[in-house]
Amino acid sequence: MPENDLVTPVILSGGSGTRLWPVSTADRPKQFLNLVGPLSLFQLTLQRCQQDNLFGSPIIVGGAGHAQLAEDQMDEVGSGPMAHILEPCARNTAPAIALAALACENPQTPILVMPSDHLIKDVNAFQNAVRQSLPLAKARWLVTFGIQPTGPETGYGYIQQGEALVGSVSSFATRKFVEKPNREYAEQMLSDGGYFWNAGIFLFRADSYLAALEEHNPEMLRAATKAMENADRTGTRILPDEQSFADAPSDSIDYAVMEKAEKVAVTPVNPGWSDVGSWDSLFEVLTADEQNNVLAGDVLAVNSHDNLIQTDGIRVATYGVDNLIIVSRDDQIMILPRGQSQNVKKILMEMNRDD
Amino acid sequence: MPENDLVTPVILSGGSGTRLWPVSTADRPKQFLNLVGPLSLFQLTLQRCQQDNLFGSPIIVGGAGHAQLAEDQMDEVGSGPMAHILEPCARNTAPAIALAALACENPQTPILVMPSDHLIKDVNAFQNAVRQSLPLAKARWLVTFGIQPTGPETGYGYIQQGEALVGSVSSFATRKFVEKPNREYAEQMLSDGGYFWNAGIFLFRADSYLAALEEHNPEMLRAATKAMENADRTGTRILPDEQSFADAPSDSIDYAVMEKAEKVAVTPVNPGWSDVGSWDSLFEVLTADEQNNVLAGDVLAVNSHDNLIQTDGIRVATYGVDNLIIVSRDDQIMILPRGQSQNVKKILMEMNRDD
Repeated sequence: MPENDLVTPVILSGGSGTRLWPVSTADRPKQFLNLVGPLSLFQLTLQRCQQDNLFGSPIIVGGAGHAQLAEDQMDEVGSGPMAHILEPCARNTAPAIALAALACENPQTPILVMPSDHLIKDVNAFQNAVRQSLPLAKARWLVTFGIQPTGPETGYGYIQQGEALVGSVSSFATRKFVEKPNREYAEQMLSDGGYFWNAGIFLFRADSYLAALEEHNPEMLRAATKAMENADRTGTRILPDEQSFADAPSDSIDYAVMEKAEKVAVTPVNPGWSDVGSWDSLFEVLTADEQNNVLAGDVLAVNSHDNLIQTDGIRVATYGVDNLIIVSRDDQIMILPRGQSQNVKKILMEMNRDD
Repeated sequence: MPENDLVTPVILSGGSGTRLWPVSTADRPKQFLNLVGPLSLFQLTLQRCQQDNLFGSPIIVGGAGHAQLAEDQMDEVGSGPMAHILEPCARNTAPAIALAALACENPQTPILVMPSDHLIKDVNAFQNAVRQSLPLAKARWLVTFGIQPTGPETGYGYIQQGEALVGSVSSFATRKFVEKPNREYAEQMLSDGGYFWNAGIFLFRADSYLAALEEHNPEMLRAATKAMENADRTGTRILPDEQSFADAPSDSIDYAVMEKAEKVAVTPVNPGWSDVGSWDSLFEVLTADEQNNVLAGDVLAVNSHDNLIQTDGIRVATYGVDNLIIVSRDDQIMILPRGQSQNVKKILMEMNRDD
């Protein structure tokens, strides 16, 4: 396969959520934590794209504050980046992807855009979906990957499939993008069928994306282009010009491009995907013991069931408690019932009010 | 009131239970912890007997390992002991009380025997009961104090009252002592009436106790007497001879004396007593906030109710949990449901098995 047929992975690692507090914090974002095993989600994302006949070296787009951490983690899994772009300020995904597309030497390079903090268990299924979608991307389609929904989730956007694409084994035109729905609408979509979760994974040629941006958001393209023209470059590190990049409107790729562009396709895939977006979703992806507990660290759970208990230091001892999430990190411990982990943010709100 | 009419408090502080683990440990027994406020239960016991026209200086009987801790705590509340007897080995309450009785210069001194790790909220009611019982003690009765039961507790012994004593306002002869009953029997006693909890508080002349011991347990008296004759004395500290004391049978005062002696009286009293024998009973005696939580230390309880949460260091943050006992001390934290705190021992058993 000639060099320019390889896909360039573009890994977005600028996120800094606190939904997995007290383990994830602004200084210690989720993608760099080894939540599911010895490797971090970022490292698992890198490994997912180590397939010589499909992927070239990746482009990483991340925050300057975590540059060294990211590079140390890349070294650990033997992944040398083509470019490590350090966002001078946070502008959401659409401008970040524009920086990566502009960093490609060959504008026709197909790029696979991925969040760095999701989990995909079936890497083969994922890579096959990428491979099958590659002809569409080369033909200038913007391809999204749609995850088969397993429930009426209100935390994700949805993609409705349209007609099957001629000449494609497994992809469809998209009919519409649906932003995070309410419960009723989510249930309706599930019973109607033909809707998929939008996992924020995209495949397209760099020039296709930049062309769509020029059409639908020329101001953003201009800001990103100027930021890259005036960037500082040291080795593989690229620091785009802050003042230019700050002029870019802050928008998601969904809103800025995908919902507006014409040749948008969806490839359904069922790769054991999780956004690991909460302690509850982490519990779902980890393997439980015979008491259906997921335990890590110095934990003694006596007559206790269906709990997620993690500690990095202090000993946690329980008796007779069920369905709790108990997480200790450094000098803090959080305790809430399973099914309630979206309320971590309410704890943090109260804390910030007190401080 | 002449000197020899004053009551000598005898405070038994040799206990070393772990029912309030992880706060109470063998090194840090419950009586020396400030569980209910700025003063420890031991200090509150000392204060309960600081009443010039009723009590003289106390005799403390405790473990050698906690001698300095006990004396520091006595200093803090301005209580200088008449004697501080350091048990060379643990032999339960009957031999410990014998040591104290033998330490009284005047054998007719009335002594008030008390555990050091109970809580009494209504000190006036308690002192009045002691005062009213003093004539009986002087007349060589062995007086127990019976706590009005508030429920069919299976964790305490019971005392059944007999006939009212002529010339006494408020005391009765005892009919019988009942060891810790099963649930059914406890309920039966409660519905029958005339039964009281045995709180381990006794009033008698030193010589009455020693005489009863001579009658029912001469071997124990002989061992205690020899231990005191060969004791090391430094200031107020008395260290009875270990080899002699080791010969004393290990028995409770109830079993060795009270259940067998003839002139045994019971004075009912309702002084807001608690043995603080578990985290559940501690919850009962502490004042809860508007969410019915009892919180101490760096705790943030959001949308959480009816919990006991204590921490001496790390921050404990909860959301949406109810009826839990959460206790953090040093590098350990324990979590169990309210009503289950008797199972602390099962956690400790598992831990010892693992270690």
